[in-house]
Amino acid sequence: MRLSEVAALVAGKLENGNQFVEIAGIQDLQAARENEAAFLSNMRLKHQFNDSRAGVVLLGSAMFPDTDRTVIRVDDPYLAFATLQRHFYPEGKSTGSRSEAAFVDPSARLADDVDIAPMAVIGPNVEIGSGSRIGSGCVIEAGAVIGCNCLLHARAVVGGNCILGDRVILQPGAIIGADGFGYAWSGKEHLKIPQVGRVVIEDDVEIGANTCVDRGAIGDTLIERGAKLDNLIQIAHNVRIGACSIMASQVGISGSTLIGKGCQIGGQVGIAGHLNIGDGCKLAAKSGVMSDLKAGGTYGGAPAMPHRQWLKVLALTARLPEIWSSLSREHNRD
Amino acid sequence: MRLSEVAALVAGKLENGNQFVEIAGIQDLQAARENEAAFLSNMRLKHQFNDSRAGVVLLGSAMFPDTDRTVIRVDDPYLAFATLQRHFYPEGKSTGSRSEAAFVDPSARLADDVDIAPMAVIGPNVEIGSGSRIGSGCVIEAGAVIGCNCLLHARAVVGGNCILGDRVILQPGAIIGADGFGYAWSGKEHLKIPQVGRVVIEDDVEIGANTCVDRGAIGDTLIERGAKLDNLIQIAHNVRIGACSIMASQVGISGSTLIGKGCQIGGQVGIAGHLNIGDGCKLAAKSGVMSDLKAGGTYGGAPAMPHRQWLKVLALTARLPEIWSSLSREHNRD
Amino acid sequence: MRLSEVAALVAGKLENGNQFVEIAGIQDLQAARENEAAFLSNMRLKHQFNDSRAGVVLLGSAMFPDTDRTVIRVDDPYLAFATLQRHFYPEGKSTGSRSEAAFVDPSARLADDVDIAPMAVIGPNVEIGSGSRIGSGCVIEAGAVIGCNCLLHARAVVGGNCILGDRVILQPGAIIGADGFGYAWSGKEHLKIPQVGRVVIEDDVEIGANTCVDRGAIGDTLIERGAKLDNLIQIAHNVRIGACSIMASQVGISGSTLIGKGCQIGGQVGIAGHLNIGDGCKLAAKSGVMSDLKAGGTYGGAPAMPHRQWLKVLALTARLPEIWSSLSREHNRD
Repeated sequence: MRLSEVAALVAGKLENGNQFVEIAGIQDLQAARENEAAFLSNMRLKHQFNDSRAGVVLLGSAMFPDTDRTVIRVDDPYLAFATLQRHFYPEGKSTGSRSEAAFVDPSARLADDVDIAPMAVIGPNVEIGSGSRIGSGCVIEAGAVIGCNCLLHARAVVGGNCILGDRVILQPGAIIGADGFGYAWSGKEHLKIPQVGRVVIEDDVEIGANTCVDRGAIGDTLIERGAKLDNLIQIAHNVRIGACSIMASQVGISGSTLIGKGCQIGGQVGIAGHLNIGDGCKLAAKSGVMSDLKAGGTYGGAPAMPHRQWLKVLALTARLPEIWSSLSREHNRD
Repeated sequence: MRLSEVAALVAGKLENGNQFVEIAGIQDLQAARENEAAFLSNMRLKHQFNDSRAGVVLLGSAMFPDTDRTVIRVDDPYLAFATLQRHFYPEGKSTGSRSEAAFVDPSARLADDVDIAPMAVIGPNVEIGSGSRIGSGCVIEAGAVIGCNCLLHARAVVGGNCILGDRVILQPGAIIGADGFGYAWSGKEHLKIPQVGRVVIEDDVEIGANTCVDRGAIGDTLIERGAKLDNLIQIAHNVRIGACSIMASQVGISGSTLIGKGCQIGGQVGIAGHLNIGDGCKLAAKSGVMSDLKAGGTYGGAPAMPHRQWLKVLALTARLPEIWSSLSREHNRD
Repeated sequence: MRLSEVAALVAGKLENGNQFVEIAGIQDLQAARENEAAFLSNMRLKHQFNDSRAGVVLLGSAMFPDTDRTVIRVDDPYLAFATLQRHFYPEGKSTGSRSEAAFVDPSARLADDVDIAPMAVIGPNVEIGSGSRIGSGCVIEAGAVIGCNCLLHARAVVGGNCILGDRVILQPGAIIGADGFGYAWSGKEHLKIPQVGRVVIEDDVEIGANTCVDRGAIGDTLIERGAKLDNLIQIAHNVRIGACSIMASQVGISGSTLIGKGCQIGGQVGIAGHLNIGDGCKLAAKSGVMSDLKAGGTYGGAPAMPHRQWLKVLALTARLPEIWSSLSREHNRD
């Protein structure tokens, strides 16, 4: 791929370079070789720019304005990296291969080009749309519906009657549609409440490895289009995750909580049940949310508070020993 | 099901209704239609009562005393809901179906009516009691014993020699009997200590999706009857969980800790090793427990403290910036 | 095994005992019988020493100096216990058994003595070295390389092109090589960045049940030799874990963070991305790390601070209500 083509693909401007030079791939600044592109988006890695052997660097317009290196100026170097990487590694396609070592119930309806890997189990009345690929050891239970061009990695589970839209990705071990956690205390035992809702996952959602999304108790648990969930996350029954929200690993969302659209939730955050988290909220890692949060806010701490207040609280908390000594000294002086 | 039958089933009193009206199912207040029941147990949803189209609402005796809606008065609406839902969705039964796509070791002893789904693996000398159902892709290792009427969902693992009582439910991906985490430092490497104990799970226990219960290092890890564990929980070697204790997702219990009976443990709680948590303790979400806790107490925070003290600490911590400004002002005035 | 042989194996000194007495195994102090050894390493269990029926107790040189019980004096009783337990329970060996209920791609290259359990899937061009054992339902994807004498428990996953050294243990459900969590915001959606790096796991590493180690975005994620990871841990893309580091369950390490050698990381710790944690760091359970940490330090809290400071902060935080009352009283008196 020529430099001129790279620049066109990422809508950038080539500086100090020969447009006919060929680029074979993309790497990080430290590892890139002369025939590879690199990118600089994390300012912590700025010092690597000068030493990099990369043939070209994707760079923001204001960075190193006087450099004589070959660079391509772009608005968002990380997005440019993503675009280029997606060009070099296009998504796989299904081939219609069906392993004889899989089990497919005769009542399942699969598009002709669906791939089924060894040891997968496709239950009764399952429907799978065109272009979808079902990985080794996956279990798709009775009546589940999987859209087109989905990619289910090894050992993912889709429970009975759950619905996946198009282009949904399940990483290995993801579990969609386990029972929600619901009991009523009878006076001598916890009576299990049948969990009869479904999980509905809209288009372009990705679910991380070993993440669990429980089915609704009565109605459905819903993950709206474009949401991205990392590994080892717990989504309880009847939660709704808004479109394009993104959450880091080990987050836990309790039952019936509504997360707005475009939220960003850090790792190990916990959110109590029956809450309303507004659109576009940002939550720092390890936050604990015990009440509704207004749209557009940034929060931290447990219980969560506005981020600025939280930073002040953290600073003062760390200084408590010093403050206390000073107060004690003053008191004694009095 | 007639209203009179519903009232009888939940031991409630029908008000303002025709006992011959038929009810087809149960829903939440917002979704319920004229031929469905609903219930009101969470007071946060009180405002939905008047607008609900439900044919009947299961209601506590003191709520909306003057309503002219059709209601059934009960002591505990949530328990009544559970009872009714269990009536409409009775538990499944095994049918004795054995998938030819499963692997059953010839030395395994299975009751005639046990179900084995595709891709399940039943190892040597395993015993499985009457009425139990083994889901797709489950692995039951050598010498494990599973009682009667158990339900193992897809891809659950029961390790060698582990014991499950009757009516145990394993959600998908649950792992019973992985090795405990035990090493001794030799001066140059971590020497693995063989983990030779078992996991023993008593009757009526439910274990959540992708939850891990490790086998004992020497003796056993024990989950007593009626305990309920949510998803993604870690139970380390030689822990004992008391009868009817219940814990929310992503809790972690370190080695050899004893949890009493009837405890309630919130999400993402961590408990250190070799501790004693008394019967009936309640722990707020995200608590971190570093010492023994007395029976019957309610605790929060990390390290955990009595709940009242914790609430005061939280309130003051959030006010630290304000308190500090006021102290500084005073000091400067002096 | 005679007492004299036990003493020789653990490099200890037999006191008050007959060297010809036979020992059949090892137990904890409370459960041990006359023909069994026990050990005392956790001083919290000191009170169990006198009542134990154990035939011999492995004991530190300074403990109970005047006891007339049969003891073997050793430098490190826990290490002695490990050594003895490893003697009584030697590691299993592969036998070359290949289940007909497994799927092995014809292009895979397996040493003759490799064991393959039922329902395992071995993909194209996989290599597995001598003595390795692949458990039931494991999935080894295309091009992965597994060294010698590895033990993969039930349902572990090794993703495409990932590398395992020798004597690596994967507990059940461990997932090596899921996609890292990387997206670029296009202005209207999260564009997935292809994750094209690998996971490289060196010799003698153990990975816990349902733990996830993601593949690198471009370069590799690396777990150095002898590191031990407990259950339900999240290791993000391009993380490096130093040799012999050990981490308890439910830890989460964000992308590109480097953990030094010989670190000890407590349960539920979270570490932000792109950080440098120096060699030999110790982190208290539930710590949250938001900046680089110097080698050799002990830290706690969120955000993490030196352990001594943290203990003072905790003590003062718990006393805030009392301090506040006292300040208010003083103020009013003024």
